[in-house]
Amino acid sequence: MAETKKSNLALVAARAGVSVASVSRVLNGGSASEELTRRVREAADELGYVPDASARTLRTGRTDQIALAVADVGNPVYVQMMRAVTRIVAKADYRLVVSSTGSDPQAQIDLLTSLNRGYADGLLLSPLRITPDLIDAMRASRLPIVVIGSLPPDVELDNVRADSATGIGLAIEHLVEQGRRRIALVNGPVDTVPGAARLAGYLDAVKRFGLPDSPELQVTADAFTYRAGREATADLLRQSSPDAVVGANDLLAVAALKELNAAGARVPDDVAVVGMDDTDAAELATPSLTSVDLGSAERAKAAAELLIRRIRNPESKVRRIVITPSLSVRESSRTEAQKPDGAS
Amino acid sequence: MAETKKSNLALVAARAGVSVASVSRVLNGGSASEELTRRVREAADELGYVPDASARTLRTGRTDQIALAVADVGNPVYVQMMRAVTRIVAKADYRLVVSSTGSDPQAQIDLLTSLNRGYADGLLLSPLRITPDLIDAMRASRLPIVVIGSLPPDVELDNVRADSATGIGLAIEHLVEQGRRRIALVNGPVDTVPGAARLAGYLDAVKRFGLPDSPELQVTADAFTYRAGREATADLLRQSSPDAVVGANDLLAVAALKELNAAGARVPDDVAVVGMDDTDAAELATPSLTSVDLGSAERAKAAAELLIRRIRNPESKVRRIVITPSLSVRESSRTEAQKPDGAS
Repeated sequence: MAETKKSNLALVAARAGVSVASVSRVLNGGSASEELTRRVREAADELGYVPDASARTLRTGRTDQIALAVADVGNPVYVQMMRAVTRIVAKADYRLVVSSTGSDPQAQIDLLTSLNRGYADGLLLSPLRITPDLIDAMRASRLPIVVIGSLPPDVELDNVRADSATGIGLAIEHLVEQGRRRIALVNGPVDTVPGAARLAGYLDAVKRFGLPDSPELQVTADAFTYRAGREATADLLRQSSPDAVVGANDLLAVAALKELNAAGARVPDDVAVVGMDDTDAAELATPSLTSVDLGSAERAKAAAELLIRRIRNPESKVRRIVITPSLSVRESSRTEAQKPDGAS
Repeated sequence: MAETKKSNLALVAARAGVSVASVSRVLNGGSASEELTRRVREAADELGYVPDASARTLRTGRTDQIALAVADVGNPVYVQMMRAVTRIVAKADYRLVVSSTGSDPQAQIDLLTSLNRGYADGLLLSPLRITPDLIDAMRASRLPIVVIGSLPPDVELDNVRADSATGIGLAIEHLVEQGRRRIALVNGPVDTVPGAARLAGYLDAVKRFGLPDSPELQVTADAFTYRAGREATADLLRQSSPDAVVGANDLLAVAALKELNAAGARVPDDVAVVGMDDTDAAELATPSLTSVDLGSAERAKAAAELLIRRIRNPESKVRRIVITPSLSVRESSRTEAQKPDGAS
């Protein structure tokens, strides 16, 4: 490729009747006389010479890149989203740029500022925390943005979200049908958008089904991670005796499974466990994990499609899409009667 | 940001004494008279105005992006690599562009061609299959490349690889120490670099420890995925009765765990299971999975550091780094005597 580039410059130089160094200077924006600039640009135009992607971007205003910003690239729900987005953007001839920003809104504001300098044609943002500063940065962005996750109703941005409150209701309804009553919640931080939504959905469902809502049945992990989930579940088992545990995501639920296992409790016989997000981790767990499918792949796909539409037609009407949840029932919550082989 | 851009254009327009539309046309490479072009460029230069990243890239030759190409973004070993690379490149002020290319070398050649048009400053490539065409494309690249994985010795590229043959030897030595003799291998495709290395390491270790190397103990999954691992393990159990299974990665090993479980075999009492890569999946499994740590995070970190060094100093001497493996022993291979609580 180095050879190709050199000979292109040489061709332009020969046509313009100037040195290769002069061509390079003009095309790279260095100082050059008006006459030299004119001759080089004419020669380059006649030869259809585009030095590289940067020049093409400058001409077309396109970077052919779409950015996806997630909190934690190690969370299987984001892996699922990445897979779905990769397929959609590749079909539309974009490359995907993935950034793992953590849960700090400032990191996402910094990313937005950086991308606005012209590094991407659009951004898919899945923030854990929505602050006024982040909203201001999103509103000021000249880069099209689609938010995956809940947004305040007055923010006029394309948006795809899960209905996790309804989703947790499905989990609790299922557990009640299995005869469970003391249904605990292992939540992630409640100052995050998903943490707050899951708590609200849990409290609503507990009330609806007339279940005990004692505070001992609710614990909060420091993060939506496996390790934090182990600690939170240990706390839960010290303070109460649940007959079911809902994890606010699959990692927290697998952590609950493992902690119950370590404490000698049988799953699902003694304690049923249900996760949320229905990721690969749910199928790989032993026993396999019942999980609320919040449509992560579907959300990511819809968001990527909205973003491509927005890039192609900046004046499109703002759309807000809500993906309906469903429940994938597996071994971790099936009672005796429902086991195909009747084994305990 | 829309505001900032607009006012910059307006400043240039005011200084040049022309309309904002004219400034935009000239700076974006649209058609404009020589006189107009000169006035706008002079005004922009005097104000130090750089329209965006593309112009800056054209000037500096930098994109501030490093690309990472992996076979499957859903494999936890690549997630571990991404995490490690993200940290290193962020410290050096680069953004990470992640591409999931699948196992087809042509997809990686296409990516390389595309990146060579000026979309990244360097590439970390972790290919499953090394073909002569891919080697030619890597040699012809003007973009610096560091390969994560084995390379033929005559390819002069920076390279970081695991010693997976030694790694699988550690696994088999450990299993022999636990009294296992009929040690099976659930491998991935043997026409891939990791598949071939694991098979060679397995055959070597089996010979070294005087174990039976009957073909019935060796099965090959269609891919390094959980689903393919379930099928391959089902085949294995139909044709033989191993007392231990080594999975060529953690997903294959977790699949073996689950398939053994479904067949009513107790792990580790009846059959011990060991994985490779020591990913999160090993700790999350029940029982937790003994796994060969092939230093994926360390490999990715070393490769990212080599790449940044190569970008900064293209004349650096080519380096080849081999990361030494170790074994993380967990529940899936511990015999009675070694269990801390003596439980069966």
